[in-house]
Amino acid sequence: MFYHVKDLQFNARVSAPNPRFATLLLEQFGGPNGELKACMQYFIQAFAARKPYPDKYDLLMDIATEEISHLEIVGATIQMLLNGITGELKEVEEKSQIMELLGKQDKMDDLIHTALINPQFLVLSGGGPRLTDSQGVPWQGSYVNANSDLTVDLRSNIAAESRAKIVYENLMQFTDDPLLKETLGFLMTREIAHMEMFEAALANIQPNMPPAIRQGDPRFTNLYFNLSNGKKSYRGLWNEGLSINLKEEWQYIDDPVKYVKETKGLTKTEIKGTDRTKDSNKKIEKKLSNTRSKEIKNATNKVPMQWSESSYS
Amino acid sequence: MFYHVKDLQFNARVSAPNPRFATLLLEQFGGPNGELKACMQYFIQAFAARKPYPDKYDLLMDIATEEISHLEIVGATIQMLLNGITGELKEVEEKSQIMELLGKQDKMDDLIHTALINPQFLVLSGGGPRLTDSQGVPWQGSYVNANSDLTVDLRSNIAAESRAKIVYENLMQFTDDPLLKETLGFLMTREIAHMEMFEAALANIQPNMPPAIRQGDPRFTNLYFNLSNGKKSYRGLWNEGLSINLKEEWQYIDDPVKYVKETKGLTKTEIKGTDRTKDSNKKIEKKLSNTRSKEIKNATNKVPMQWSESSYS
Amino acid sequence: MFYHVKDLQFNARVSAPNPRFATLLLEQFGGPNGELKACMQYFIQAFAARKPYPDKYDLLMDIATEEISHLEIVGATIQMLLNGITGELKEVEEKSQIMELLGKQDKMDDLIHTALINPQFLVLSGGGPRLTDSQGVPWQGSYVNANSDLTVDLRSNIAAESRAKIVYENLMQFTDDPLLKETLGFLMTREIAHMEMFEAALANIQPNMPPAIRQGDPRFTNLYFNLSNGKKSYRGLWNEGLSINLKEEWQYIDDPVKYVKETKGLTKTEIKGTDRTKDSNKKIEKKLSNTRSKEIKNATNKVPMQWSESSYS
Amino acid sequence: MFYHVKDLQFNARVSAPNPRFATLLLEQFGGPNGELKACMQYFIQAFAARKPYPDKYDLLMDIATEEISHLEIVGATIQMLLNGITGELKEVEEKSQIMELLGKQDKMDDLIHTALINPQFLVLSGGGPRLTDSQGVPWQGSYVNANSDLTVDLRSNIAAESRAKIVYENLMQFTDDPLLKETLGFLMTREIAHMEMFEAALANIQPNMPPAIRQGDPRFTNLYFNLSNGKKSYRGLWNEGLSINLKEEWQYIDDPVKYVKETKGLTKTEIKGTDRTKDSNKKIEKKLSNTRSKEIKNATNKVPMQWSESSYS
Amino acid sequence: MFYHVKDLQFNARVSAPNPRFATLLLEQFGGPNGELKACMQYFIQAFAARKPYPDKYDLLMDIATEEISHLEIVGATIQMLLNGITGELKEVEEKSQIMELLGKQDKMDDLIHTALINPQFLVLSGGGPRLTDSQGVPWQGSYVNANSDLTVDLRSNIAAESRAKIVYENLMQFTDDPLLKETLGFLMTREIAHMEMFEAALANIQPNMPPAIRQGDPRFTNLYFNLSNGKKSYRGLWNEGLSINLKEEWQYIDDPVKYVKETKGLTKTEIKGTDRTKDSNKKIEKKLSNTRSKEIKNATNKVPMQWSESSYS
Amino acid sequence: MFYHVKDLQFNARVSAPNPRFATLLLEQFGGPNGELKACMQYFIQAFAARKPYPDKYDLLMDIATEEISHLEIVGATIQMLLNGITGELKEVEEKSQIMELLGKQDKMDDLIHTALINPQFLVLSGGGPRLTDSQGVPWQGSYVNANSDLTVDLRSNIAAESRAKIVYENLMQFTDDPLLKETLGFLMTREIAHMEMFEAALANIQPNMPPAIRQGDPRFTNLYFNLSNGKKSYRGLWNEGLSINLKEEWQYIDDPVKYVKETKGLTKTEIKGTDRTKDSNKKIEKKLSNTRSKEIKNATNKVPMQWSESSYS
Repeated sequence: MFYHVKDLQFNARVSAPNPRFATLLLEQFGGPNGELKACMQYFIQAFAARKPYPDKYDLLMDIATEEISHLEIVGATIQMLLNGITGELKEVEEKSQIMELLGKQDKMDDLIHTALINPQFLVLSGGGPRLTDSQGVPWQGSYVNANSDLTVDLRSNIAAESRAKIVYENLMQFTDDPLLKETLGFLMTREIAHMEMFEAALANIQPNMPPAIRQGDPRFTNLYFNLSNGKKSYRGLWNEGLSINLKEEWQYIDDPVKYVKETKGLTKTEIKGTDRTKDSNKKIEKKLSNTRSKEIKNATNKVPMQWSESSYS
Repeated sequence: MFYHVKDLQFNARVSAPNPRFATLLLEQFGGPNGELKACMQYFIQAFAARKPYPDKYDLLMDIATEEISHLEIVGATIQMLLNGITGELKEVEEKSQIMELLGKQDKMDDLIHTALINPQFLVLSGGGPRLTDSQGVPWQGSYVNANSDLTVDLRSNIAAESRAKIVYENLMQFTDDPLLKETLGFLMTREIAHMEMFEAALANIQPNMPPAIRQGDPRFTNLYFNLSNGKKSYRGLWNEGLSINLKEEWQYIDDPVKYVKETKGLTKTEIKGTDRTKDSNKKIEKKLSNTRSKEIKNATNKVPMQWSESSYS
Repeated sequence: MFYHVKDLQFNARVSAPNPRFATLLLEQFGGPNGELKACMQYFIQAFAARKPYPDKYDLLMDIATEEISHLEIVGATIQMLLNGITGELKEVEEKSQIMELLGKQDKMDDLIHTALINPQFLVLSGGGPRLTDSQGVPWQGSYVNANSDLTVDLRSNIAAESRAKIVYENLMQFTDDPLLKETLGFLMTREIAHMEMFEAALANIQPNMPPAIRQGDPRFTNLYFNLSNGKKSYRGLWNEGLSINLKEEWQYIDDPVKYVKETKGLTKTEIKGTDRTKDSNKKIEKKLSNTRSKEIKNATNKVPMQWSESSYS
Repeated sequence: MFYHVKDLQFNARVSAPNPRFATLLLEQFGGPNGELKACMQYFIQAFAARKPYPDKYDLLMDIATEEISHLEIVGATIQMLLNGITGELKEVEEKSQIMELLGKQDKMDDLIHTALINPQFLVLSGGGPRLTDSQGVPWQGSYVNANSDLTVDLRSNIAAESRAKIVYENLMQFTDDPLLKETLGFLMTREIAHMEMFEAALANIQPNMPPAIRQGDPRFTNLYFNLSNGKKSYRGLWNEGLSINLKEEWQYIDDPVKYVKETKGLTKTEIKGTDRTKDSNKKIEKKLSNTRSKEIKNATNKVPMQWSESSYS
Repeated sequence: MFYHVKDLQFNARVSAPNPRFATLLLEQFGGPNGELKACMQYFIQAFAARKPYPDKYDLLMDIATEEISHLEIVGATIQMLLNGITGELKEVEEKSQIMELLGKQDKMDDLIHTALINPQFLVLSGGGPRLTDSQGVPWQGSYVNANSDLTVDLRSNIAAESRAKIVYENLMQFTDDPLLKETLGFLMTREIAHMEMFEAALANIQPNMPPAIRQGDPRFTNLYFNLSNGKKSYRGLWNEGLSINLKEEWQYIDDPVKYVKETKGLTKTEIKGTDRTKDSNKKIEKKLSNTRSKEIKNATNKVPMQWSESSYS
Repeated sequence: MFYHVKDLQFNARVSAPNPRFATLLLEQFGGPNGELKACMQYFIQAFAARKPYPDKYDLLMDIATEEISHLEIVGATIQMLLNGITGELKEVEEKSQIMELLGKQDKMDDLIHTALINPQFLVLSGGGPRLTDSQGVPWQGSYVNANSDLTVDLRSNIAAESRAKIVYENLMQFTDDPLLKETLGFLMTREIAHMEMFEAALANIQPNMPPAIRQGDPRFTNLYFNLSNGKKSYRGLWNEGLSINLKEEWQYIDDPVKYVKETKGLTKTEIKGTDRTKDSNKKIEKKLSNTRSKEIKNATNKVPMQWSESSYS
């Protein structure tokens, strides 16, 4: 259950209206890396975590709730940046105020650009935020990633926060309003804080690589296919020496066409550079299956089912 | 700023898992008339109302906050209806439990149907809700209507609630689980309660017909074009007698092709059946312009702007 | 079956090309509140109404047919506003006319802005309208609301017309071309006329509140949850006194967290402020079920089925 | 301007309800090759053709109008195939009729499958058609192709009709209802008739290959790059002998990697197998530019502009 | 299996950055007629052709592979046109370089327009291409047409290439950079070359009209309905004389309303102007069914199935 | 530039057709975590990396090229699983084979379920793959994340691979076909291999936390807001002790409402638990700005620009 307090989590202010920046800022209101995406992603992931992993559920809901509070901050900022439009639109006499403005230099520019760059602020939303990205594409449920496995979900969240962070960083390049910049700085910083939280939660689950249960076929985890050719093919940590997590030795396939032919479409590949075997895999999978499956089943297998804690007190 | 309490607003329970019904119920989670749509619609409308209409802002945010609490109820119910899937998916040994289940009659049916009817519950979301409608189409920002004018927005809300109401009514036809039915009944009832609230708020704004400021051209407000022909063309309150709000006499155009020709594409239409004139319109528009524009401008025209109330106390 | 006459319902004209306004006007061609949406919404609602409610079917098809005639007016206007582009694009000699234009002040501005603000008018549609909103987002079937119940559908239509009305009102703020303004005024006025028609049709169906059949649970129809807090929580027609339709006394829940706990997630709520009971509900539902179900079944239960009236004469 | 007659263009009938086939048939109601797509494509193409090419405009509007009449036929058929659902949904007593049906073998199956395969027929549309494809994806404006050039548009239409044709052909495989099959056969046949019409109209415009104005660079029009290799690379009319329209000799590049290197990224390619030159191209382009540009400009360059023919009589 | 060489198929160059043109060019990167659409369309059509029609498979994969190489050329060109943005965005000191630039005339203009017209280049993609059209609408799988029948698919391809051609033609109107123009000219020309290839392949399949198997009902293939009326209804190759492929005589229905009534919704239509009969149709369909079905079944009916040629050598 | 070899990278085989599994497998063909998404994400990220980071470019293109080869494997597998449908659809005689099949028990089931669960396999694609997810939603460009900064992009890739991995893991639960399972196992394993590669590449860039340039405001990086309350609020690595990367001490805000009020909307928050200051931040930002900006500008600032390496040899 949610509650709302009318004051914002952060005291968002702007020095003056700026419909152009409002357009840019829509990116974090209804865009693919914006606050609604973050909120919904953690909120939805939380359902599967609720019973078996109450600590991670708490983390996810703490952050989801902060993100919708940030959505409110972004929306409020957009509304302030658009200040003036709604009132102007209500002046409909013969020679409208807006048309007069169009004849004057200063505000005209802002209005024309707003009208044409983001026409919907004027003709559709009438001066309020819309649930779209900065180019008018509506927010979509497909922005949300939730796979009911924390070793996957937390990685999705780390990546999502890192994208949200760089978008705020980019946005900060386009304003000199110190009040606005302070709000953007706060929001950008919180993405970093959330990254730290999600990384800690992921580290707290062991093993987490590979994510989920199944282990990789030892014939294929350490092959590197050199499929893009030119003057030089580069070598680096990612295709020579040992791999970072599994500590297997990279097998660099210099001529993949030839290799695929010789191995009959890789089916004749032999295990190299690793101690893992089909059997060692199976052992790990069995153990992991038991643990994770049990954690989940123990926490969820009662009927009738009730979501809330038993007593409501 | 939002807060969250882990217990639900309504004590949602289900008697047994039922992945089929979970699929149907997605309609109110991520569908066009679902709880997220309602929440986002009122939340976004509220930005423009905040300063000039604090009472309507309060109403919108009270209901928006209830709707996200309902979104949580629906998600929790779906999670309970899918109970068992997440745990089962973690059993990955050679002959998987799920495949064994496929050989047994009872659960098999549920699983096959879930897998095939809503494949993403199994292969993508892994047993949790997704932000889609009941057929897998992702939720979209374009479901939200917000036009920064309460005489329009409140009508959008009345219609939205009435659609949400009938979807719950339809859903109730497909279950006999008394616990589930109780939750659906609660959610359906709240849509009716919200309709009452929005209708009261609309009645509280006068005049509200036509919505917004501009008045209709008196030549065209009471014409009825008989454009669909057959054995019988029906007459009713909507094309004979006086119109409901403007109290103008309906002019029934029996043969629109002929009428359009004779009036040179309607440009030679004369005012009939109404006392309104171009002048009387202008008078109303002027008055309304002044009032509404002033209400908005008075409340928003300060710089620098701050969203929160001044003292945070 | 449809027919077409090449002259428009309204004699649409423009004084001069204006690609910027053409961009804005797309909002009513392929936008969420535009003419195609209106046409398709009433057209699709009409299928379910055809047999049981021939008078409402007639109304819906009369208006649907008018709306597609309006779509034609809007498209024709956009085409005239873009006048010149298609011909210019066909000049492809070495130093193209368009590039020369870019060196001249007057038309240049229009073209640059068109090219960049709505690039698709130039590179994709080549100077004709597209089925998108003013920002290039394609029209979508999800804009259409149709629920096979007139007490719901007519409310959807009233709201849709009120949104279409305000968009035309906003558009009128951005032009001084008297010919264009006359067309916009006609189109805006017809939205008002349609609102009157739909409201009359809704009033003609009794009872219509709540919409559809099921009655609200008397424990929950008149609760108001004060979920958004700040310096002041407002009271009004929507949370004190009697509700507008059901005439129940509003129960204002000042502290919903506490109330939810005390009522065990609302399950222990008692009926207050209303005479309705579970039994009185059931009585109404039974009666309504019988009436509405019978109306529909009587009109549709013959096999083989034929859509057209029997004689085609 | 459009008109409507309540009887269908074709006397659509069905022998019995069949919600499963209704689901399949949605493909031609709101799918990418369905009747709305066809109607909108020709309708929108017609705007640019109106003034300069009145004969092609007439053709496009004749067919567009037939297609919306076909949309009506498809919708009516879906409504008849869903017969029974809307009435059943209105029976909401304690033990609902639908749930009772679920206990009976015959109708149950249909209902379950309908509910689960196309849940929105039951819980959202309440037994009427929706503007989606057969899997529930909403119709989109991006299905429509219109490029303001008839040598392109008519090709888009030929292809569109050929896809619509095969979808009806496939649909006919899934029913034995002779009445339904008759309607499908009519609709499929009309796609063939329209293909014939569009091909004739394309042949009527000369030259039409390449489409539009610019001619292909003679160095690159007849190169064939053998970019997919295996046991055998096939030769055929498309890479040996003369090309069909331009009558140039195909140059088969057996080893494109080598060829690209040798020609410095094709910039050193020399003209082979054709008489066309940069100069001959320019001559054609100049002539075509003049003709087509003049046709368009002559027909559109008057201000103020009016769409309808001058007299409305 | 695919391989990549780092140098482009065509030596794409640009004379100077030009973020405005980069925006326009997105149309061919992630737009409905762009290179990804072409690549994916042929690639996906190829799956069904692989076994029964290895020559057409080869053709489709040769062109699909060229198209993804063109996608790379377009992306590389956009990246070069955006040159400078990524580096600038990394300068985040107090008074940012970008904001300074905004104070200088020359680059400012470009940046402002880029920022506002395509905000995502700056705040989201950070100076790289995105998979959207020129207005920011994401690329969609629904752009792809593939119906597992070459008589349909090849027509879809001819139309697709003709649209891609005109978009490049239009784009060439908006630049004078000779290097950029050379690349656009190459890409435009290849669309013409591909049209030639697909037309040859279609001609190679006989009969191909109507596409697929079923023949048109002889009562309806040659009817022309005059559904759009005005001062004049035009006659032409498409509604008088013989049809182009079937050589049937067009039957012009001057008054379709009357005709539909008289023929009882066309069901009483009689065959005119053609020698085809229901029987002659059936004969053709039987023969075609046998041939096409056998071609496909012979090539695919082995189990277990393997995709690659047997030996990988 | 790309090349294609007709044999697959992995020798994909299936034991028997299985249209149900084909439906599930679509998730990795045209779904949000499928092979096209992976391919396009790395391909598009590579454009910005090409010049300044040739080693990372090489890595991205090696993997992008492998992913499109995997897309081919998935498509080929779906085509084999649908084996039989295309041929069957070509049998169109009076009493069709498909309808006869519907009267027979064994294959009927498969066909009905295919037809109804994924109707488009039968009526639209005619037995081939489509670019949609397993529920028919078209693939979208918005699935792709590319932000022109490798510290962000590589994190997006790690997350993307981890989601792709779990979807293959889930898919493996629904088949016992050993040939099919072998292919799925290969594809799943490669996602793990790619994760290893991307993690190594990320580790190779230092510093990478926070991603991009700007440092977090030291007042806000280590605050944890306890926004979700219930019986228990959990503590863990993510809200007590030191944060993982920045090694700052978590500040747990137990009562955020109170805290926000006291700090005047956080603006009066003081730095605690960290040594970082506004000044130390600025120093790091300056250094990072210089390095990263220079890396990029040095590699890209030449005009005219050419993409390919200079000599094509």
